[in-house]
Amino acid sequence: MTNDLNNVIHRSIEAWNEPDAARRLELVSRTWSDDGTYLDPLMAGTGHDEIAAMIAGAQQQFPEHRFELSFGPDAHNDRVRFAWRLFGQDGSAPVAAGVDFGTLSEDGRLRSVTGFLESPAA
Amino acid sequence: MTNDLNNVIHRSIEAWNEPDAARRLELVSRTWSDDGTYLDPLMAGTGHDEIAAMIAGAQQQFPEHRFELSFGPDAHNDRVRFAWRLFGQDGSAPVAAGVDFGTLSEDGRLRSVTGFLESPAA
Repeated sequence: MTNDLNNVIHRSIEAWNEPDAARRLELVSRTWSDDGTYLDPLMAGTGHDEIAAMIAGAQQQFPEHRFELSFGPDAHNDRVRFAWRLFGQDGSAPVAAGVDFGTLSEDGRLRSVTGFLESPAA
Repeated sequence: MTNDLNNVIHRSIEAWNEPDAARRLELVSRTWSDDGTYLDPLMAGTGHDEIAAMIAGAQQQFPEHRFELSFGPDAHNDRVRFAWRLFGQDGSAPVAAGVDFGTLSEDGRLRSVTGFLESPAA
């Protein structure tokens, strides 16, 4: 079964925002392939459990914050890029921003994601 | 021997600009690992010969044009991103632009590069 790219990328943003551990793991499982990876300058994870735990750690650092998709997904072949911003409770200026590059598995889930951080004002 | 990242990325831009086939292949060989790959929405190549030939094809499409690095390199772990613009002879507005995402081999050369195209005005 092939996963629609837009759904996969929006689901990944949902996973970063999901406060419930069981629902977060389910979202991660439907977003990343079983051997999926995530790597950015601050965090790394391989497989659903590690990636879900890594996201939980980020949520603890930024409680009540919310990720939003700000660009993409833009894809060709089995490659995708998208960008995100992180907003605090007041919702005004983003407190962090980044661009993610990914490779897709045959079923359309993310095989690997590499994150880079941007200046949030950019 | 480890290749300095800045040198590798600037050398990759030089390769895209080099009109001489032998010098272009030498620049490609010093920029990509032996099994290195390049993939964007329009082109693909694996290994030095294919990548050098692919660049020659791009040069034929854009004669007398010149690539310039416009962002980066920005790197963490074994991942790198950078952006480029392509200028025509009049040198005013860029005719094309893109962002490249790469993984590095242990000796610091590029193992894989994925290119995405931007709006040149962006």
